[in-house]
Amino acid sequence: MKFSARHTVKNSHARTGILTTPHGVIQTPVFMPVATSGAVKTLSPEEVKNLGAEIILGNTYHLHLRPGEELIAAEGGLQKWMNWLGPILTDSGGYQAFSLGATRSKSAKTTDEGVRFFSHLDGKKLFFTPESAIDIQLKLGGDIVMVLDDCAPFPATEKRLYAAVKRTGEWAKRSTEHWQREGIALRQAQGKGLFGIVQGGLNKELRQQSLKDIQSLPFDGIAIGGVSVGEGKQNMLAAVDFIANDLDPTRPHYLMGVGEPIDLIRMIHRGIDMFDCVLPTRLARHGAFWTTNFKRENIRRASFTNQSKSLDPKCNCPTCQTYSASYLRHLVMTNESLGLRLLSIHNLSIIFNLLREIRSSIENDNFVNKFGPHLS
Amino acid sequence: MKFSARHTVKNSHARTGILTTPHGVIQTPVFMPVATSGAVKTLSPEEVKNLGAEIILGNTYHLHLRPGEELIAAEGGLQKWMNWLGPILTDSGGYQAFSLGATRSKSAKTTDEGVRFFSHLDGKKLFFTPESAIDIQLKLGGDIVMVLDDCAPFPATEKRLYAAVKRTGEWAKRSTEHWQREGIALRQAQGKGLFGIVQGGLNKELRQQSLKDIQSLPFDGIAIGGVSVGEGKQNMLAAVDFIANDLDPTRPHYLMGVGEPIDLIRMIHRGIDMFDCVLPTRLARHGAFWTTNFKRENIRRASFTNQSKSLDPKCNCPTCQTYSASYLRHLVMTNESLGLRLLSIHNLSIIFNLLREIRSSIENDNFVNKFGPHLS
Repeated sequence: MKFSARHTVKNSHARTGILTTPHGVIQTPVFMPVATSGAVKTLSPEEVKNLGAEIILGNTYHLHLRPGEELIAAEGGLQKWMNWLGPILTDSGGYQAFSLGATRSKSAKTTDEGVRFFSHLDGKKLFFTPESAIDIQLKLGGDIVMVLDDCAPFPATEKRLYAAVKRTGEWAKRSTEHWQREGIALRQAQGKGLFGIVQGGLNKELRQQSLKDIQSLPFDGIAIGGVSVGEGKQNMLAAVDFIANDLDPTRPHYLMGVGEPIDLIRMIHRGIDMFDCVLPTRLARHGAFWTTNFKRENIRRASFTNQSKSLDPKCNCPTCQTYSASYLRHLVMTNESLGLRLLSIHNLSIIFNLLREIRSSIENDNFVNKFGPHLS
Repeated sequence: MKFSARHTVKNSHARTGILTTPHGVIQTPVFMPVATSGAVKTLSPEEVKNLGAEIILGNTYHLHLRPGEELIAAEGGLQKWMNWLGPILTDSGGYQAFSLGATRSKSAKTTDEGVRFFSHLDGKKLFFTPESAIDIQLKLGGDIVMVLDDCAPFPATEKRLYAAVKRTGEWAKRSTEHWQREGIALRQAQGKGLFGIVQGGLNKELRQQSLKDIQSLPFDGIAIGGVSVGEGKQNMLAAVDFIANDLDPTRPHYLMGVGEPIDLIRMIHRGIDMFDCVLPTRLARHGAFWTTNFKRENIRRASFTNQSKSLDPKCNCPTCQTYSASYLRHLVMTNESLGLRLLSIHNLSIIFNLLREIRSSIENDNFVNKFGPHLS
């Protein structure tokens, strides 16, 4: 895996870059739509591609449960199976194992060995280790593989945060060692990349320690975790600000689980190159959408009942070019899944258009000027 | 509205024809996908068009409840509102008013005046008359408008069937009179058409009486109702056979609610020109699909788990050209709505491909030869 920063900006950490993967080249800053269970909710891979996606994210927890990595491997990997011809980043599954993998009486449990959890489908006892998380992701066909990390819940005690950072560091080391073993090294040689994850919650020292731990290892990219877990906007900014100056500029920086347009601008300003988030499709399922000036609106509002115009007259997405807000509102109010699909298309377009604008403004040394009011 | 039979077949009532509507020309025999509430479930109007649909059906009952015909009229009619640029047939709403329009304590009730029913959404008391059913459909923008008829439940007593036929005839007369009144006649002059409906259940004399009643009136087309309501295949054939020889050849013949491929073949043989049915999309929602030899299969079957091939190797639909059965099964098993959408696309393609083959075989005087085993 190869990353090269193309252009950096004065008075900002914002930069454009090129990330080369086995399934194609990605222009950063990039947003990865989430194909939780083999599909970006309501959309075909072709639609996602046409909207401007260059890479998508697959959820290891969900795919491990159904249909299982063995089936996907036998079908030629996620890319071939779901007909997504570009790169795919797979998460480690740890976060979902911890948040979804509980029964009524037993919760998921993290030990030094790994995460023990229970399938939310049938209660089956399962286990992820740093090693097995990599093995599963390689079977799924991930171009970018994420390490298993220990993401402390929010809020957490200092003691728990400290333990999470320590364990995350130890698992990171085990992960890079596993990654370099025979067989796996072979796959790595195909150009796949392994990313480490920085934890540490809202504790500056712990964030910096975690960054040091992760950056001391031969990861292909540095991810920042635990910033979208129940924390407010200001906290999210703080967590990134603790380490923004110390991010290794030779590697890509990936902020996990962030997708609000305004946050993308702020975080790109802080040096982030990659994002993923379920928001564009999740908001759509609740009738919510972004306007071209990054405000949230809801199509269920009565004022849209008779709006013959599109959702946003300034939007050039396929939904806004074709359908009135009145029609979209009707679809959502009557639970027609086409409504969710058309809103998902709009929301993803807002994100991809924003990223195109941002990349272009960086290349033209105009980023700070153009997005100034949104940077802090 | 103009209909001309183009080609008829020896030893069969099968024929091709051209139906001219205000929103374009339809080649018959034709299948109309059902856009119940302003959308063919899970599909965009553009997708429906690309699959080969030339006309769709809108449900007056559903659209009357939400968003209401006034809103749709203000938005320029169904065609403009939902971005379906072709013709639309609207049903009268009577069938759904009767089957859905009941509260826990009160059922819908048919009197000589019309159908009294209750909104299934909020229990509001509503009323359709032959006249109001036309008015609503014209506001919706129907190119083909259906009369309100009295469809007796199945099974029905002879007395109830007789009453239904009598009332259907009286309402048909009121409908043609209303259609010819000033203002409405104006719309008719735009090329819209009004279709009458033949009832009579499984009683030969009543079917023939009803046909005589309907054909004596200046309808633009003759529909056959009450054949898909809880009746078996043999009964459906019998009901049509009672009147097949007496259908006026100068007008189009529309069999309501029939969409199983094998039934389309049989019924086209009996002189039917038009069909509508929710089956292609309803089956998809249950994981069911048709093969190219008109058998029903279900993607949930375990044997599809590892099937790297498409649903049907002989199918050239967008779904089969792109996705494996294994992937489609996964989408359906995990309730990803993309799965329902891809199966709907397949099922509609099976129907449209069949109709293309049938029309071509009729034009080539090869229909009886080609579809012989399926005709009886």
